[in-house]
Amino acid sequence: MGFEPTDYQPYDFANRRHIGPSPAEMEGMFEVLGVSGLDDLIGQAVPEGIRQAEPLDFGPALSEREMLWRMQEVAEKNSVLTSLIGMGYHGTITPPAIQRNIFENPAWYTAYTPYQPEISQGRLEALLNYQTMVSDLTGLAVANASLLDEATACAEAMTMARRVAKSKAAAFFVDEGCHPQNIAVIRTRAAPLGIEIIVGAPEDMDAAAVFGAIFQYPGTFGGLRDLTPHMDALHEAKAVGIVAADIMALCLVREPGAMGADIAVGSTQRFGVPLGYGGPHAAYMACRDAFKRAMPGRIVGVSVDSLGNRAYRLSLQTREQHIRREKATSNVCTAQALLAVMAGFYAVFHGPLGLKAIAQRIHLKTARLVEGLTSAGYAVGPDAYFDTVVVEVGLLQRGILAAAVREGINLRRVGKTRIGITLDETVRPAQVEAVWRAFGLVRDYGEDPETYHLPEALLRDSDYLTHEVFQMNRAETEMMRYMRRLADRDLALDRAMIPLGSCTMKLNAAAEMMPVSWKEFSGLHPYAPADQAAGYAEMIDDLSAKLCTITGYDAFSMQPNSGAQGEYAGLLTIAAWQAARGENHRKVCLIPVNAHGTNPASAQMVGWTVVPVACDAKGSIDLADFRAKAEKHSAALAACMITYPSTHGVFEETVREVCEITHRHGGQVYIDGANMNAMVGLSRPGDLGGDVSHLNLHKTFCIPHGGGGPGMGPIGVKHHLVPHLPTHPLQGAGAVSAAPFGSPSLLPISWGYILMSGGDGLTQSTKAAILNANYIAARLSGAYEILYTAPSGRVAHECILDVRPFEKTAGVTVEDIAKRLIDCGFHAPTMSWPVAGTLMVEPTESETRAELDRFCDAMLAIREEIRAIENGEMDVAASPLRHAPHTMEDLVREWDRPYSREQGCFPPGAFRVDKYWPPVNRVDNAYGDRNLVCTCPPMSDYAEAAE
Amino acid sequence: MGFEPTDYQPYDFANRRHIGPSPAEMEGMFEVLGVSGLDDLIGQAVPEGIRQAEPLDFGPALSEREMLWRMQEVAEKNSVLTSLIGMGYHGTITPPAIQRNIFENPAWYTAYTPYQPEISQGRLEALLNYQTMVSDLTGLAVANASLLDEATACAEAMTMARRVAKSKAAAFFVDEGCHPQNIAVIRTRAAPLGIEIIVGAPEDMDAAAVFGAIFQYPGTFGGLRDLTPHMDALHEAKAVGIVAADIMALCLVREPGAMGADIAVGSTQRFGVPLGYGGPHAAYMACRDAFKRAMPGRIVGVSVDSLGNRAYRLSLQTREQHIRREKATSNVCTAQALLAVMAGFYAVFHGPLGLKAIAQRIHLKTARLVEGLTSAGYAVGPDAYFDTVVVEVGLLQRGILAAAVREGINLRRVGKTRIGITLDETVRPAQVEAVWRAFGLVRDYGEDPETYHLPEALLRDSDYLTHEVFQMNRAETEMMRYMRRLADRDLALDRAMIPLGSCTMKLNAAAEMMPVSWKEFSGLHPYAPADQAAGYAEMIDDLSAKLCTITGYDAFSMQPNSGAQGEYAGLLTIAAWQAARGENHRKVCLIPVNAHGTNPASAQMVGWTVVPVACDAKGSIDLADFRAKAEKHSAALAACMITYPSTHGVFEETVREVCEITHRHGGQVYIDGANMNAMVGLSRPGDLGGDVSHLNLHKTFCIPHGGGGPGMGPIGVKHHLVPHLPTHPLQGAGAVSAAPFGSPSLLPISWGYILMSGGDGLTQSTKAAILNANYIAARLSGAYEILYTAPSGRVAHECILDVRPFEKTAGVTVEDIAKRLIDCGFHAPTMSWPVAGTLMVEPTESETRAELDRFCDAMLAIREEIRAIENGEMDVAASPLRHAPHTMEDLVREWDRPYSREQGCFPPGAFRVDKYWPPVNRVDNAYGDRNLVCTCPPMSDYAEAAE
Repeated sequence: MGFEPTDYQPYDFANRRHIGPSPAEMEGMFEVLGVSGLDDLIGQAVPEGIRQAEPLDFGPALSEREMLWRMQEVAEKNSVLTSLIGMGYHGTITPPAIQRNIFENPAWYTAYTPYQPEISQGRLEALLNYQTMVSDLTGLAVANASLLDEATACAEAMTMARRVAKSKAAAFFVDEGCHPQNIAVIRTRAAPLGIEIIVGAPEDMDAAAVFGAIFQYPGTFGGLRDLTPHMDALHEAKAVGIVAADIMALCLVREPGAMGADIAVGSTQRFGVPLGYGGPHAAYMACRDAFKRAMPGRIVGVSVDSLGNRAYRLSLQTREQHIRREKATSNVCTAQALLAVMAGFYAVFHGPLGLKAIAQRIHLKTARLVEGLTSAGYAVGPDAYFDTVVVEVGLLQRGILAAAVREGINLRRVGKTRIGITLDETVRPAQVEAVWRAFGLVRDYGEDPETYHLPEALLRDSDYLTHEVFQMNRAETEMMRYMRRLADRDLALDRAMIPLGSCTMKLNAAAEMMPVSWKEFSGLHPYAPADQAAGYAEMIDDLSAKLCTITGYDAFSMQPNSGAQGEYAGLLTIAAWQAARGENHRKVCLIPVNAHGTNPASAQMVGWTVVPVACDAKGSIDLADFRAKAEKHSAALAACMITYPSTHGVFEETVREVCEITHRHGGQVYIDGANMNAMVGLSRPGDLGGDVSHLNLHKTFCIPHGGGGPGMGPIGVKHHLVPHLPTHPLQGAGAVSAAPFGSPSLLPISWGYILMSGGDGLTQSTKAAILNANYIAARLSGAYEILYTAPSGRVAHECILDVRPFEKTAGVTVEDIAKRLIDCGFHAPTMSWPVAGTLMVEPTESETRAELDRFCDAMLAIREEIRAIENGEMDVAASPLRHAPHTMEDLVREWDRPYSREQGCFPPGAFRVDKYWPPVNRVDNAYGDRNLVCTCPPMSDYAEAAE
Repeated sequence: MGFEPTDYQPYDFANRRHIGPSPAEMEGMFEVLGVSGLDDLIGQAVPEGIRQAEPLDFGPALSEREMLWRMQEVAEKNSVLTSLIGMGYHGTITPPAIQRNIFENPAWYTAYTPYQPEISQGRLEALLNYQTMVSDLTGLAVANASLLDEATACAEAMTMARRVAKSKAAAFFVDEGCHPQNIAVIRTRAAPLGIEIIVGAPEDMDAAAVFGAIFQYPGTFGGLRDLTPHMDALHEAKAVGIVAADIMALCLVREPGAMGADIAVGSTQRFGVPLGYGGPHAAYMACRDAFKRAMPGRIVGVSVDSLGNRAYRLSLQTREQHIRREKATSNVCTAQALLAVMAGFYAVFHGPLGLKAIAQRIHLKTARLVEGLTSAGYAVGPDAYFDTVVVEVGLLQRGILAAAVREGINLRRVGKTRIGITLDETVRPAQVEAVWRAFGLVRDYGEDPETYHLPEALLRDSDYLTHEVFQMNRAETEMMRYMRRLADRDLALDRAMIPLGSCTMKLNAAAEMMPVSWKEFSGLHPYAPADQAAGYAEMIDDLSAKLCTITGYDAFSMQPNSGAQGEYAGLLTIAAWQAARGENHRKVCLIPVNAHGTNPASAQMVGWTVVPVACDAKGSIDLADFRAKAEKHSAALAACMITYPSTHGVFEETVREVCEITHRHGGQVYIDGANMNAMVGLSRPGDLGGDVSHLNLHKTFCIPHGGGGPGMGPIGVKHHLVPHLPTHPLQGAGAVSAAPFGSPSLLPISWGYILMSGGDGLTQSTKAAILNANYIAARLSGAYEILYTAPSGRVAHECILDVRPFEKTAGVTVEDIAKRLIDCGFHAPTMSWPVAGTLMVEPTESETRAELDRFCDAMLAIREEIRAIENGEMDVAASPLRHAPHTMEDLVREWDRPYSREQGCFPPGAFRVDKYWPPVNRVDNAYGDRNLVCTCPPMSDYAEAAE
């Protein structure tokens, strides 16, 4: 007894789960590529000169289970108290049906931004519900599909006001009752744009001196006032009035639109989205109809498809900054789609009566709380409140706060002698009693009081959520089926590869997602005492340290909650450093023309002048032009912004020289981290000469795209920039987000991925990503021209297929091909970016060879369909390419096409019994932009469409 | 300031979520029914004489959130230690991808038993994977799709052995190394059947004296022996050899088939299904090919559809006892489908190499543990072990067990001087060190040892899981998509009503489901010390008390883990009571012919003679016949078994008299609780004269069907029967299940439902269920004859549609209608039960009027299609009814039908863009039974089918 066990291996293969191609599949792929192995390929694809010296080493990788144990260990270091701190963050009840069927459902969370409307009708409808909810509750005609957070939305509203105001004044007025983080982010945004910020009491505002003004409603200390007079004054001065309004309060009190507001912003967090220590949540923005084309962010609208049936789509897509580039005035195109969907469903779930009842109950509990405190002799204000009051406690402040914590409750410290209390829908009578006890009062809650304590003049008298979708039967069965139907209309990562160039749609492992729902991560208020967030601190420290090792930077800030936000924060950091060394005049930023569209937009937001740099025929930076521009602007050079590997998918060997030139002329180097998935473990931007980079944790580090957000864009910097990183929003100027760590409840995903991969695994992921891209390039290269390869002929982690010739040879457009891919069961690759008329494909490491082959088979068959047109065998207008995507409607109708139903609906790649059917035919984009409808059309129209 | 809030209502309407029809919808339904309101209807449908005196009152109903708080409070009273107790229950790692995408996904857990194969191809494939896994690992040709638990499976194997053995011996041999609960349940089952049980050491077995024998492998104390000699001896005596084998051990050691076993049974719990304090888990059974038609339970097989494509189905359905009735020898037709699916996916997820690695690691950790204990001087046995050993500790037993608990570990108390230890895949080196510390040994784990401690002769040398599905790429992306594809092939409650008569497919609310995943409920070993399960005890006590109030009984036993098991346990209780009062000779059981098929089967299992009682033309018990039979068998009358309301869906007014007659003749009354959904809050079986009832918690109390299990069938009894309820499996004879409380981790679902409903809400549910059934009856009554109504013309909670005439008038069968309903987007109602050739419809209270209307529209349209045949406008063979269900294949192929594609595929009821497409055409049942294939066919066949 006793002999050698054979084929012993670690028991759950964490990293093996993440990487698509199996070892056997890889062998076959090497053969196709003519390489001896992975390292041979990487040697060809990644120039020696940019490789990092040491392999990544984080010790042994953890299995799924070990990672979850470690996560649990950290989670338990967080203390989840009931936070009645307010400031725009509230306890909320996520309806379990929404948690299970949306938040924890890969059909929703793995979806991409709905740029391809035909495969996104489900989430477009969900977002339209959200927009309708915001529009109704704010009383304004148009709402967008969400922004990053309330503070960012305030800043966006300010810059939007400047764009639309007829007033020529240079200042912007901020109600002193605004939440401090809103004021902080407004200040940060205003400074480089030269906007003077005046903070004061509304009654002291000089409307003539400002182009716009923002008011918090209710105020951060609970005050509720009728803002109509201030709006009137602003309008008289041709200035713009903005209200940052609490969405729950709007269920009871007069809506901003009814008070004359032009723009309303706020957070929808308390509509069923957990606190999450600050995020992610969806901020809303709404405006009057006249301003809608100036509104930042995405707007879902209604259009028609080629059969004339109703179809949803993203409206005004040409406004997005990747199109506007140098003309952009905002870099916020990202949204918080998943969270907006949740908030919208919360409204669908409760309906107007349910929401009103929730708001009423919150208010009445607050009234009872106040009654108790007043009876005990405390001075409580304001007189008119919704859910927030402030108590004058003099020297007792510290003692009461501590007593409250002992009761499991966080209250808000206000000044040195006051305490703020904000109630929410989760607060139980026993907790009101606990608050009373903290104030030394022993008393029974009794029943809810029966009367409001709201000024009658501010009571809302308009209806809301009158659309049928909010009148839906409240039975969970109905809700569950509605969520399922919407999910089934969409194509997400849980059904097929989404080969989006530069978007890195990789696996979001279930094990990585699970901790996000744990109450230890989801239940913390962003301004809870630091000692209650020790687990978060430990995770953030470890994650930051590992990201430093991965990138070669010295420190990370987790505050930016999107990639664009990260860029902006990075540039602000550079600007602050330049200013600190007395070089405030440096305001030129060199940006190659192949840069991400957000780059120039971000540069403009920090007040810089963008100087474009040319690219050569290979798509790489034209070094001569770069050198010339740097020299020309030497005295004013603030920074350059480059993407590495380039947006053309190539590791440029000149990168070190570009950095060196920039530094020589006094500039700093910003390396965009969007393509970091091609670098992790192989090359470090910090080593190449970068001073700052942002990382898209939602690309490279497994945070799901959620149908267009959430994201996280932390920035890494070299040592000299550390003092200039964004600050805590409540501590001095310089914050870019509402919450100190952006959207921290997402961080377990990225941390879990790193823990389960280890250094080896991360490096292997990068190699597999490069392998997959090169495999696709190799399989398609006979049929399609691959734009931009390295001298070795290899691409990095993505490749560009040049389909422009087909427009000439066959009249086939890139859109035809993209839509035809839907018939094959695929989301289209990135269209027309970075090169118009092309397709950029990024398979990521998570796709198996089988799935890559399915994609290649589809692309090759499409090439044959194009050839048939080229040969004159098929007319392009009658071709399956032009009629794509095909729907069930096509199958049922008379078939008068020159190709068979079989060819139309089941091209190579398409599953047979598991066929994905788009719910609409090709969507008419122009129609939608001409006829902008951004709220739910009446259900009767649906019935028609269904006939 | 201060005025009346309007329309104030509770904030999350828990019960409103559960009930389908909204108040406004109900008003419209009353109009259709011509009643003034709900109570008017109930007055007509439910006879005054059987109504309960007092309304249910459990105090105020809790909201979802309040219920979850209460659940959390109870959960925290359970202590989740690491249980190394073994006895067939093991810690396991549920892969998060399986937990999220199967266990917590309504597409899987709300599905019904796959009797309608066309809408069940996904779960049928998953179950076929499971069967293939069991067949491979046991080395036996055929496996079924799971049984209730290992102990039940042992008992089933014994009775199966008696059916197939050529030996005429009356005794059955049981290895003394069997788990005690297995022995207990075998004894319970054997007694009434007159089987003598001989427990002893295998070497003492006299093969000639037995018809069969069962051996535990490895034994409950860890012993591993080659069973070949015992199997040989049994075969020589024409007896049957059974092995109860640990599924994980079979990845390393010789399989039962290779040792000559005829039957193998065991639990698949440790393949990724949480402990759950004892259940639910899937037990397996496999046998040699020759015995397959004698095997109990469901068997998934392979057949073809009407186009000749591969299709899965349940094989040999005619074996199920609702068909066999009096001839049945087992009442186990229920399975643990959801848990079998999970275990099957665990094997798909890990593949053979992964499973082997897990088994190796468990064994090697055990070897290291033993090495430590031995080095400290302990006597550890046996010599050959897999994961279990026993340590001789003398007087130290109590101290070591207590020390282990302080380390967070439960060990097994064996006798007075020994301690058992069983390791599993969750055990970490640190926990082995903790066990050592409990034994007084301080030592580092070091690395895993490198050699097995298994007898070389017992090492497995055959391959397993060679089928392609187990060779699938191990990437999670691939797994996730496979799970999604299978889910999408099926139609479950998350997409449409499942109007199954007597199956009560109601809402399984997400809030009710969530606690099932909490580790405080899922992590407990069934034999953990009682003080660690205080939360469970509190829940079970409260749930039992409430069920007593609901039913009018005095006590409940939670042990039966299915409805059929409940029946059996109830009859055993009656038999024990009869025996205790010296009436052991009473062995006649009166059962009306309209009874559930399990009723006669259960009666035979307790050794009784079934005497059928006639029904009248209305489907009610023929009271005269009942009286006559009772009188005739007065001296021998043990019991009667009735269903209330009757299986014909009628509240029989004679029920009290039936009970009274039975009692007068010395019998006890068993009232089947299958139709309890028509009674809760209105009528109590205990008040009507019942002595025992089982409740189907998976019907009336919201436990989901899981595609055919799990279920729970607790029994309620009157006071006099309490001493005769099933006992704890480790304490005396009389256990019916392996675990003391059956499948307790499901109980939070039922308890949560009751807490959120309150007495009023439960009663309202019942009324709404009756309303919905009567609404369907009213809408369809012009088109279909409604069989069996009360004198008032009303039905109870279900109605039977008589479609038999159409066979004569149009040649349309009940199957044609059922399959046509699939085209309309519905699961068919119950077919041909309780009346052959009819459809029984039970909508439950959870369906909205809109969904009921969709169903009625579909049924009315089908009636018109039948009329077209009756009128000679359509030939039945060419009709859409006969070609149903229609698939995408039909649409793509040449269309030569006399009706349009539109009519064929989009009949009234069918969704348009959200159309459900069955993946196969009508399945050929006869073909499947003739060509019984019960393991996965090669993937190459799949490819063919896909072409």
